[in-house]
Order: sequence, then structure tokens, then C-alpha cells
Amino acid sequence: MKKQKLHIVKIGGNIINDEALLTSFLKDFSAIKSPKILVHGGGKKASEVASIIGLKPKMINGRRITDEANLDIVTMVYAGLLNKKITAQLQKNNCNAMGLSGADANCILAHKRIVKDIDYGFAGDIDAVNSETINLFLQNNITPVFCAITHDKNGQLLNTNSDTIASEVAVAMSGLYETELNYVFELKGVLESIKDKNSVIKHINLEKYKQLIKEGIISEGMLPKLQNCFNALEKGVQKVKIGDVSLIKNKNELYTTLSI
Amino acid sequence: MKKQKLHIVKIGGNIINDEALLTSFLKDFSAIKSPKILVHGGGKKASEVASIIGLKPKMINGRRITDEANLDIVTMVYAGLLNKKITAQLQKNNCNAMGLSGADANCILAHKRIVKDIDYGFAGDIDAVNSETINLFLQNNITPVFCAITHDKNGQLLNTNSDTIASEVAVAMSGLYETELNYVFELKGVLESIKDKNSVIKHINLEKYKQLIKEGIISEGMLPKLQNCFNALEKGVQKVKIGDVSLIKNKNELYTTLSI
Repeated sequence: MKKQKLHIVKIGGNIINDEALLTSFLKDFSAIKSPKILVHGGGKKASEVASIIGLKPKMINGRRITDEANLDIVTMVYAGLLNKKITAQLQKNNCNAMGLSGADANCILAHKRIVKDIDYGFAGDIDAVNSETINLFLQNNITPVFCAITHDKNGQLLNTNSDTIASEVAVAMSGLYETELNYVFELKGVLESIKDKNSVIKHINLEKYKQLIKEGIISEGMLPKLQNCFNALEKGVQKVKIGDVSLIKNKNELYTTLSI
Repeated sequence: MKKQKLHIVKIGGNIINDEALLTSFLKDFSAIKSPKILVHGGGKKASEVASIIGLKPKMINGRRITDEANLDIVTMVYAGLLNKKITAQLQKNNCNAMGLSGADANCILAHKRIVKDIDYGFAGDIDAVNSETINLFLQNNITPVFCAITHDKNGQLLNTNSDTIASEVAVAMSGLYETELNYVFELKGVLESIKDKNSVIKHINLEKYKQLIKEGIISEGMLPKLQNCFNALEKGVQKVKIGDVSLIKNKNELYTTLSI
């Protein structure tokens, strides 16, 4: 039997920071007919709140460290303010959204990142996604909306990369659904040249991916994003695309499709 | 056929403010064997965050007004920080908790309070509780944990009294379950004299309730709490009790039972 389609969309901070863009995106997302899941990043709101409170971001070697005070802030902003505002807007659009952290119904289980060189504090690395419970929601016409907070089943909340959440949720659900994963961000796709916003590389397979890394075309923030894409494809996700908000309307020509 | 039992427990701010008390309460709550729902108030954390941010509580005639900035704060603190911390602790206790606002899966629908004398801002009065969806969760061994945020299905989040949420959820579920509602707070029950913490009135029926109001024994904060209790009883909730954290252990003798 052919599996039912499932659409998983991850939106990044730049969309969340732009109220008009977010509103328009959420309308398009609501219009997706198949079962769907939204995963959202944090945007600049957490840094804003931290800065108002007088909390400075803790960085080691350019990496953000989640201490207890910062964990409280991301829990407030991601799981509270952003997650509930997005959910309320989707409800307005007649999308039966339900905002979730990984702790809720034990949907996403993680562990505190093991300290090697750097102690990242309360950063979570995902161990398991509860596909059965997520499927219960989907089969009852509920659209899960995941924020970037997970837990360790031992009472500890953990700040977790939202690109990785999207990838791992997609992998877990791909056993039950024909799963498409979309990373929606500020660019039209993976660019040949960062100076030319239209220089979208339309298709990247595993070989080309390795070549682009060697050439230095894929670097910095794009590197972990593409690692998440290929992780998803290698573990059973059928389709992965990267692009801007127009991507989910399925009308634009410009976006990057990935394959293995 | 005899209906299944459902236990709905509301905890107030004083329990949330006391970490050790909250941890111990959540263990006892997790041990309740029947399907159950937790509703939690806000505690002083929202005021703390507001004060750190430099936001003064807006009051008119001693009543708190929820302007947009305060709504953002209660959404962060109630739906984010407190709701997720409580959920993670319950998960640790092997209670499959799922934190929810009224916007999530459209569980609790409200409208912005109509302006008569006072404009309360983004305060919500409840219109409907989605018992079917809540029952779906309960029947799948999920324990809903409601915070004091609802929505209007038009994109607006609303700050809503948690005692009223507990009462209205209990009423809605009483069609499906034999429902017991517990209000857990800092006192052992309704007191004959506020000076004697052990002067618990063990039983209050509708007649006695009216008499106690006349005598001035029930006043101020206790008045709306008891209104919520009798609202629940009049609309089908089987049992309502008020007491301190020991109430849900079902061992103590001292608490107030209400009946109509």
C-alpha cells in the first residue's frame, strides 16, 4: 500500500522575526492539504529578552552556551511566546495546530550534550522521537508545532537545534509516511555565490555535496543544515528541499532539491 | 454503564513558588491512578520577570489589567517556563504529561472580556472546552497540563483565570467521566477563622455557602474560588474538594468538601 504523504516544514529565525512574512507563511502552511508538522527556530526574540534582562549570551569559541538562566529564557520564548503565537495564528487559519516541546507527551527525548572540549551546558542531542504519539495526533487531524526545546525524561529541559529536530522527526515519521522535509529560510536555496541571491544550485546529490564542501561553497551555517538534510535522506526521508517561503507554495522554480 | 473516574487538580501560585513543595506535589499527582488533568496558576514568576524587565503591573480598582506587554510575559512564563518545567517533572515521574494552552488543538476557546466599567485588556472569558480532543488524549494515557492561557480562534491569546479553567474543563468532561475537581492551595480548606489554620469547615452546601457569604466568612479571593466550585457542581461535576497538597493523597481528614 502506498504510504500517505507527510509534509514537515522547518522555519528559521528570519521568518519569525518578520511579522508580515510569518503571517503570510502561516497562511500558506495552513493550506497544505496532507498531514503536516511545523518546526520553528527561535529568532532574535530570545536574545532581545536576554538583553533586556541584562543577561549576556555566553559564548565559547563562537559557540553559544546554554547556562541555566539562558535555558529559562529560551524555554519562555521558544516554548511559550513564539510557539503559542504561531499556534494561535494557525488556529485562526483553521489549521488544528498544537504547540509542543519535546517534553510534551514525551515526543522528543534527548540527553545533555556530552562534554568533550566544550561544556555546552543545557544543549540537547536527540536520542529518540516518539513517532507513535506524533502519529496519533496526525491521524486525528492535529498539526504538531515543535519548538526547539526537548527533555531528558529525568526532569531536565534541553535547548536543541531546530534543524536537527526537523531532520530527526522526519526520519522517525518516514517509517509511517512518505515524508517530505522542507527547510525554509532567508535564501532561495543553496547558492553558488553568496553575492548572487539567484545563483541557486537546483540539485545537490551526495557526490556534489562533498565537492561543494571541498570547494568551500558550502561552509559555516549551511554545513550543519545540509548535514541534517543528508542525514534525513540516508535514513529514509523521501524528499528534502531548501528554499525561501515560496517553497511550500510549490509554484516557484528556484529552490534546492537534495538527493543521495 | 458506570463512567470512568477523572481527577482534575488545580494548583495555585503558592505551590509553584515553592520548588520542594511542587516536586513533592507532582510525585503525589503522578501516583493518581485514574485519568487525570492538571491545571496550574502562575505564581510570582510572571511578576518577577515583569519587574526585571521594568514593567509595572497595571491595576485598575485593584484588578490586574493585561496589556499587550503583560500578555507576552504571562505567555512566556505560564505557557513556556512553568508549563514545560512541570511537564518535564511529571515525565520524570512516568506520568505522560502534555503541557497545553487553550490554543493548542483548540482545547479552550474564549473571548476577550467585554468592556463594561473596566477594560481588562487581554483577559479571556471561556466560551467552550473541547472535551472530545481532551478525551482523545486521556484515552491514550496522556495527562493534559493546562496553563492559564486561552485563545479566541482569531489569532489572539488571552490570559484566563486558572480556577475558572479548572471548573470549566471539569464541567465539560463530566459528560464523559465521573469527575472529581480538587482546588489545591495554601490552606487546609475553607476556614471558619483565618487566624486558625485548622478551623476547616469540612462541608459546605449551597445553603451554607450563602450563609457564610452573609456572615463575611467567605470573602475576597475565596469568593470567586467557591463560585467556580458551585458552578462545577451545578453543571454536573460529581465531587469538589478544597485543601492543601495533602488533599490529593486522599489520606488527610482536613479539607473542605462542597455539595449542592
